[in-house]
Amino acid sequence: MAGNSIGQLFKVTTFGESHGPAIGGVIDGCPPGMTLTAEDLQLDLDRRKPGTSRYTTARREDDIVKILSGVFEDTTTGTSIGLLIENTDQRSQDYSAIKDVFRPGHADYTYWHKYGIRDYRGGGRSSARETAVRVAAGAIAKKYLFEQCGIQVRGYLAQLGPVKMAKLDWAEVNNNPFFAPDADKIEDLDQYMRELKKAGDSVGARINVVVSNVPVGWGEPVFDRLDADIAHAIMSINAVKAVEIGDGFAVVEQRGSTHRDELSNQGFSANHSGGVLGGISSGQDITVSMALKPTSSISVPGKSINSQGDEIDMITKGRHDPCVGIRAVPIAEAMLAIVLMDHYMRHRAQNAHVHVTTPDIARN
Amino acid sequence: MAGNSIGQLFKVTTFGESHGPAIGGVIDGCPPGMTLTAEDLQLDLDRRKPGTSRYTTARREDDIVKILSGVFEDTTTGTSIGLLIENTDQRSQDYSAIKDVFRPGHADYTYWHKYGIRDYRGGGRSSARETAVRVAAGAIAKKYLFEQCGIQVRGYLAQLGPVKMAKLDWAEVNNNPFFAPDADKIEDLDQYMRELKKAGDSVGARINVVVSNVPVGWGEPVFDRLDADIAHAIMSINAVKAVEIGDGFAVVEQRGSTHRDELSNQGFSANHSGGVLGGISSGQDITVSMALKPTSSISVPGKSINSQGDEIDMITKGRHDPCVGIRAVPIAEAMLAIVLMDHYMRHRAQNAHVHVTTPDIARN
Amino acid sequence: MAGNSIGQLFKVTTFGESHGPAIGGVIDGCPPGMTLTAEDLQLDLDRRKPGTSRYTTARREDDIVKILSGVFEDTTTGTSIGLLIENTDQRSQDYSAIKDVFRPGHADYTYWHKYGIRDYRGGGRSSARETAVRVAAGAIAKKYLFEQCGIQVRGYLAQLGPVKMAKLDWAEVNNNPFFAPDADKIEDLDQYMRELKKAGDSVGARINVVVSNVPVGWGEPVFDRLDADIAHAIMSINAVKAVEIGDGFAVVEQRGSTHRDELSNQGFSANHSGGVLGGISSGQDITVSMALKPTSSISVPGKSINSQGDEIDMITKGRHDPCVGIRAVPIAEAMLAIVLMDHYMRHRAQNAHVHVTTPDIARN
Amino acid sequence: MAGNSIGQLFKVTTFGESHGPAIGGVIDGCPPGMTLTAEDLQLDLDRRKPGTSRYTTARREDDIVKILSGVFEDTTTGTSIGLLIENTDQRSQDYSAIKDVFRPGHADYTYWHKYGIRDYRGGGRSSARETAVRVAAGAIAKKYLFEQCGIQVRGYLAQLGPVKMAKLDWAEVNNNPFFAPDADKIEDLDQYMRELKKAGDSVGARINVVVSNVPVGWGEPVFDRLDADIAHAIMSINAVKAVEIGDGFAVVEQRGSTHRDELSNQGFSANHSGGVLGGISSGQDITVSMALKPTSSISVPGKSINSQGDEIDMITKGRHDPCVGIRAVPIAEAMLAIVLMDHYMRHRAQNAHVHVTTPDIARN
Repeated sequence: MAGNSIGQLFKVTTFGESHGPAIGGVIDGCPPGMTLTAEDLQLDLDRRKPGTSRYTTARREDDIVKILSGVFEDTTTGTSIGLLIENTDQRSQDYSAIKDVFRPGHADYTYWHKYGIRDYRGGGRSSARETAVRVAAGAIAKKYLFEQCGIQVRGYLAQLGPVKMAKLDWAEVNNNPFFAPDADKIEDLDQYMRELKKAGDSVGARINVVVSNVPVGWGEPVFDRLDADIAHAIMSINAVKAVEIGDGFAVVEQRGSTHRDELSNQGFSANHSGGVLGGISSGQDITVSMALKPTSSISVPGKSINSQGDEIDMITKGRHDPCVGIRAVPIAEAMLAIVLMDHYMRHRAQNAHVHVTTPDIARN
Repeated sequence: MAGNSIGQLFKVTTFGESHGPAIGGVIDGCPPGMTLTAEDLQLDLDRRKPGTSRYTTARREDDIVKILSGVFEDTTTGTSIGLLIENTDQRSQDYSAIKDVFRPGHADYTYWHKYGIRDYRGGGRSSARETAVRVAAGAIAKKYLFEQCGIQVRGYLAQLGPVKMAKLDWAEVNNNPFFAPDADKIEDLDQYMRELKKAGDSVGARINVVVSNVPVGWGEPVFDRLDADIAHAIMSINAVKAVEIGDGFAVVEQRGSTHRDELSNQGFSANHSGGVLGGISSGQDITVSMALKPTSSISVPGKSINSQGDEIDMITKGRHDPCVGIRAVPIAEAMLAIVLMDHYMRHRAQNAHVHVTTPDIARN
Repeated sequence: MAGNSIGQLFKVTTFGESHGPAIGGVIDGCPPGMTLTAEDLQLDLDRRKPGTSRYTTARREDDIVKILSGVFEDTTTGTSIGLLIENTDQRSQDYSAIKDVFRPGHADYTYWHKYGIRDYRGGGRSSARETAVRVAAGAIAKKYLFEQCGIQVRGYLAQLGPVKMAKLDWAEVNNNPFFAPDADKIEDLDQYMRELKKAGDSVGARINVVVSNVPVGWGEPVFDRLDADIAHAIMSINAVKAVEIGDGFAVVEQRGSTHRDELSNQGFSANHSGGVLGGISSGQDITVSMALKPTSSISVPGKSINSQGDEIDMITKGRHDPCVGIRAVPIAEAMLAIVLMDHYMRHRAQNAHVHVTTPDIARN
Repeated sequence: MAGNSIGQLFKVTTFGESHGPAIGGVIDGCPPGMTLTAEDLQLDLDRRKPGTSRYTTARREDDIVKILSGVFEDTTTGTSIGLLIENTDQRSQDYSAIKDVFRPGHADYTYWHKYGIRDYRGGGRSSARETAVRVAAGAIAKKYLFEQCGIQVRGYLAQLGPVKMAKLDWAEVNNNPFFAPDADKIEDLDQYMRELKKAGDSVGARINVVVSNVPVGWGEPVFDRLDADIAHAIMSINAVKAVEIGDGFAVVEQRGSTHRDELSNQGFSANHSGGVLGGISSGQDITVSMALKPTSSISVPGKSINSQGDEIDMITKGRHDPCVGIRAVPIAEAMLAIVLMDHYMRHRAQNAHVHVTTPDIARN
């Protein structure tokens, strides 16, 4: 397969280019019997959609999702779910200037060499526009996981350029356009973004996601460890360059006596592991952190070549996010939800009959 | 599937427990016509094998690999390759004390909850002993990639606890038992490890891998990006808690004008991207960094519970690596080779016929 | 995955119910660079579509397909191709009477037990309406195979109830609404179908497909033999109950000295094997035959039960094909094309570099 | 992947050539907690093994299977199960004469063109020797299905050349070397086989398999229908050329009023469908029939070419089964068991929570 699907049992396949008539996808494997309407998906789509604040691209897309199949009388039937989101604000004329040009830091050059053809309008398939479908699919997974297991998947902006959050207040996250969990930092963020826009430049970000209430025992040994599948899913998000589980890179300087989380009947003594041991969930919060690079679509001039190999100077016009990390919060949540849903189903397939009397200490 | 395979077209499946009679695996999809003997695999197995220095576990395994199929008259036939490595130094008696006990920081607790049964001898399937098969499979991929494309996959120890390498001298890496690329740091490493052993503790490490000479155009868009598949493969190595591609977490504070690698006929101006753009290889070196946690098998006493839920104090006996990161270098190389081999074949399947006249600037 | 995809490298995923707003699908892995427009797909869709003759269902669907992605300026880009066909003549009111009733010979009873819910309108997902998407996907495969290798995939009606074709005239097949290759039998077919309709009954059929110009060497050993994948694809068509390759069931009474096709420089002496040896194409025509059961949607009363377990008498109303086998010809062609396309790509992935000087005798 | 695996969740991968040191495989996904020893596998291996009667090849293999992993203290652990069967009676010298020659009716010609190299000893990977591993894997599936659901998978010889069985007496099947269910036909079979051997020829056969006690609801809609996956698995057996489910090719002449199995509280009125409706099990017996071609390894001289393209006359020497269909009975059972096990697990993954009050009428 050519990379447009994720998941083994809860399988999400997407299609669509930035400036084509529509984007969409298919979810194969959703369990039957869950109540579901398009509104359930719209909530997260609205959190991701462009044009909602001065900090994101000016492209306006309503991102209205239609459920074309797999749901009957507002209930999932177990058959494949077709999703469709029409593109309404393409403005292809913005992009004709880059037809033969490889924008630095973009996929133009690599797509061209791979395929010998590319839909140059707005990045075509390499555009983050595709992630809207992931968010819709993730919303289905989120709903099922919450209803069946009480699982919550919640992300936030941990750092934007030099601005680091100092506290984690979940109640604040959805109150501001940055998904920032620290109300005291909103002004810093606003000011930094204003200066950035004035400079015509962009900046990176760190996003964290916490998954709570995952039962102990999900994940597979060896290659499809829960953390390996999470790393895959997170690194598949446009612009992500790094992933950490639990303490992440801090473990390099840790000693085993510090890192290992001791067990008692009161639970684990700490969560250095980030909720995964041997590739399998421990029942603790799953903690994931990721870095998103600054978008390369900026108005600062840069050097490049065109498809004939001639050297050129170029400015990327169009409507772009100065920090793509901001809108990545619902996308990252969606990817985590999809991975967990898949592992839940894999666990049911092989181990549905397993019962141990040992307590789930993370629930104590 | 239950997680014991990796790869779509160059598919590696492994089996075997730490203290069973043997470990082994199957490689499905290896192209025909490559000369191959067991010695080709043994080279990397010897780099990984235990008991070779005072810094690793005292368990002695010769790790002699047998090729049982798929090779005829020293040439691959295109049929599945069966690999077998017998376990010879199991000493199961060392482990009977931990039969009902969950060692902190290990997979004991999670395997027990998942399966309701576990092979407690030496960690069973969760032991890094399984990685010997990965190294054997990776050696096949390495050989093919080098012979067909000149690709080199080379790793090194970048940091061990507080000891950071200050230079990268490839000639030094295989000259010392640490895979350290900086001869000036060997003494620091030796001294740190001695103190660590005396303390009965363990420590984390950072490993880097560089892949050179990858042609532009390998990888898939969207979910199976080359970097996403690399993240998956790397995070599937025991003890890995974090992965970076290119600049990794440093991108959080970078601006787009800094991060984007400009193009000219002389090649890219820099390699912030780590050789992957839009999930597809750019022709530059692919640079990967990873963090390995300190092993939890230490003689410092710790608190835990047993399978009845009783609280206990415990010390992990047995023979263990005080820094599992050291021996991870050939494993990480193997995983990179397997991922690249898979994407090479995926590329051939879909795009073998594509030819563009645009120069491969990374080769200029 | 829940069964809505076929293919490893040329992967077709479908969605949609008989009476939902639309059906559609995604093709993942189509090679880039092929000219393609919706008209290329429409040709085969028109051959399959209902309402075109008095011998098929009265439901009228134009089956206009839209290509939503993966094609740019009438050329495939290598990214996933989204397909959409809107349902326009659903008439759901026809089906409300069967809401709680299991029609004999249908999937109603089995879907209900599997999912606990079913879209009862027109069979929902179990309806052959889904096969329109297969036909569209198959048209893409057909075009690529023909342009790259000169491969032709052609099917015909071999038998309908008691009426057997006596000759195979390819020029006749698309001249009549039965896909019959024998002009002398059209009147018999017409008369048989009139009587059948009068009786309110249905009948089975035998369909044959011949694939010409397949190069020697496609297919995989062991499980994914070319014939095994063909059997899977053909048996996945609604109503198919049997599949033969080459001589099929006739081999039971054959001797080896008769069955084996001898080789000379003039080619094979015969084609008992049906173009597949050891699971791999021999270069001869691939010959496939299949049986389609009579549809169970008939107006002859029958006994059944409802979802409460009560016994009932019922007549299936609605608009149905008295012989579903007729319209299966383009569907069977599509499935063969999809399987061959997939194996072509798998062959390229592993064996693109193989060259032997031995002649391809089937081409001599 | 290159075709050496079958199954999605109960995944069987095999390796090994006819005359290599060993054959073996890996089972990934077996549920934990089942008691299992090598003896459980040996029973079916002994039914399949060569050299047990005058009607099969004279090659003697004890086919002793070793379980190398995935079983601890005679209980499955849920990790991958490694299987190994050493080849002990290879006699490679028998085969050197065919090194450059393509035996008619064999895979020699197609493997050569596909791979450019082949292990010519005894057919290498294309030999039915590989099926021993399938039988071992199938025995695990059989045991689990029987213990969990009471499912029985039983095959028999229905016809050998012109000799058709007249009755089905299950008690007789394992009493004779033909797996014949009709004691009155044993003498006919014996006499026919003696004449066949004298003629140096071979003959085809029909094998039937019946699976009893499958619950209603297993299988997937659309592509991975239970019958489609069965057709795939059966056609993947060496020499199989045709597959039928239920009434098979007889449906061509049936009317819908005859074919559809009516429902009542006493169960289905008949089993024309063969236990599968809409790709999903109905709770009735699953009935499968298959045709196996006569082996092409006969001493009757035949014409062929060699790898230089020269025409030659040849006789296939070596030790061969005059009717490969006989030993196919346990192989066919194994394939059915593997498919059902896989679909059981797929069903659990998606639909484990579904409960309907409608009675399972096939159990009434």
